[in-house]
Amino acid sequence: MKEFELIERLTRSLHSNSSMLTGPGDDCAVLDLGIREQLVLFKTDAVVEGVHFLPTDAPEKVGHKALARCLSDVAAMGGAPTAALITLALPDGFEPSYLEQLYKGINALAGQFDVAIAGGETVRNPERLLLSVSVLGLVARAKVLHRSGAQAGDAIFVTGELGGSAAGKHLDFQPRLAEADWLTKHFSIHSMIDLSDGLAGDLPHVLKASKVGAELLAAAIPVSREARRAAKSSSSAKPPLVAALTDGEDFELLFTVSSASAVPLLDGWKKAFRDLRLTCIGKITATAGLVLREKHGVRPLTNHGYQHFT
Amino acid sequence: MKEFELIERLTRSLHSNSSMLTGPGDDCAVLDLGIREQLVLFKTDAVVEGVHFLPTDAPEKVGHKALARCLSDVAAMGGAPTAALITLALPDGFEPSYLEQLYKGINALAGQFDVAIAGGETVRNPERLLLSVSVLGLVARAKVLHRSGAQAGDAIFVTGELGGSAAGKHLDFQPRLAEADWLTKHFSIHSMIDLSDGLAGDLPHVLKASKVGAELLAAAIPVSREARRAAKSSSSAKPPLVAALTDGEDFELLFTVSSASAVPLLDGWKKAFRDLRLTCIGKITATAGLVLREKHGVRPLTNHGYQHFT
Repeated sequence: MKEFELIERLTRSLHSNSSMLTGPGDDCAVLDLGIREQLVLFKTDAVVEGVHFLPTDAPEKVGHKALARCLSDVAAMGGAPTAALITLALPDGFEPSYLEQLYKGINALAGQFDVAIAGGETVRNPERLLLSVSVLGLVARAKVLHRSGAQAGDAIFVTGELGGSAAGKHLDFQPRLAEADWLTKHFSIHSMIDLSDGLAGDLPHVLKASKVGAELLAAAIPVSREARRAAKSSSSAKPPLVAALTDGEDFELLFTVSSASAVPLLDGWKKAFRDLRLTCIGKITATAGLVLREKHGVRPLTNHGYQHFT
Repeated sequence: MKEFELIERLTRSLHSNSSMLTGPGDDCAVLDLGIREQLVLFKTDAVVEGVHFLPTDAPEKVGHKALARCLSDVAAMGGAPTAALITLALPDGFEPSYLEQLYKGINALAGQFDVAIAGGETVRNPERLLLSVSVLGLVARAKVLHRSGAQAGDAIFVTGELGGSAAGKHLDFQPRLAEADWLTKHFSIHSMIDLSDGLAGDLPHVLKASKVGAELLAAAIPVSREARRAAKSSSSAKPPLVAALTDGEDFELLFTVSSASAVPLLDGWKKAFRDLRLTCIGKITATAGLVLREKHGVRPLTNHGYQHFT
């Protein structure tokens, strides 16, 4: 989308200072505030009625989603969230009981991950509800993960299953904080990102930042039951693999590690997280570009991969 | 307004943790992240088209205002801003050149106070532009200022002039960061707040948090030229003093110090800040309540003080 290119251009030359180690273009900004063994993560994210959720969605889930999106970004940097601020832009004639449920969803998730809700702001946005959440987190200096660390030969892993999030998961997904913590503690993870725009949309961010390419194995991609169900429900729906590659809002983690770590990592994972799949879906290549290996050969997969499939 | 009471009630019982020293209800949240001599300030604020600015306002000034509001809150805690995140909620059909000017205003102010623009987010908000800004700052542990520190007998000071901000100042005001820094370095300031809802609206926050009252001297209140001009322009306009007491968005600092410090503080101020007025407008009293001393006696001034004047 052109507007995002514009924003990217405009934000490239904004003021920086010596505390900012990582600015726009990763899952979180990274700041060095002089904490001995830690760096500070800083992230903001907004959800808008009619865009990211519907007026008919359960307000508890809307609140959950608004905070969970930011927590997912903290996870993707290998960090732990500390505090959050909530800005509510309220439409005219909002229901107090709706707000109560919204906060209930926010607060339950905050409690689960011990995130202090440190305040916020309330403004009027006459036509629709908008929630803007800011999160501050901490990460061990030696453990901070970027999109830029992928190396040729790395195995590419993805947690959970992909596609079909719109059926419900987009509202009640679990940020993968415990999983990210376990990964950074036990393995030398090279790069990580959370999947918000779909595998085919987000993996290219890692590839671009790391100046590498990738080959994905079509048969290995963990397609969700919801993506399969949606494909069956209508002949005009995306085929399951396409949904897994291009549906947004999976909020799973994608990471890369040296291929030598792949087997011990999978073994350790199975013991640590019995209920969450972890799948090796391909490898990082020295040659730029993203390709998909299928039964009958290899074909390029662009940022807008689905255009090649329909 | 009832909705703000609702929010206050809902935010009172939200999850906290040991890093949060000050949560909702001060100008910024205060976090202890283990930095040896400093605490972290965390603040978010939003401005909405048609509410806080008009579609016809210069976009550079709109950007300036969005960031300056947060910086003013950091100043009110005695701190210095480090980094900011900008969330843009863009209406359908926005002009790229408008965005460019918006960022120009944000960036100029960020440069002036060495605030790193560490990233942000862009979402759709079809009907109107909304900017949500989050700021992270630092404050010396021993120098953090709260609304709750006012003591009976304190002199009450206010920077600049009050009222009539809608004529233009609300868009291009200067956050009083240098002034707050000077104040905390040279004097033992007891409490501070920035004036966003008008003197009669904001001073009660200090009084409530400090469990004290105050007596303001009507003749001492520094009424802005704009407030006087507006009063003259129409017979239905607020009288100048009422405007100075109740107009919002002055973004001046109000603080209290022991009365013994009042004279040396005024003397030092005149040398340090030649171009900015500082006025002693009254004193903190042990008796709760806010009263206004006028020629013919004393009368109570409520949170909605203007209702008593019109």
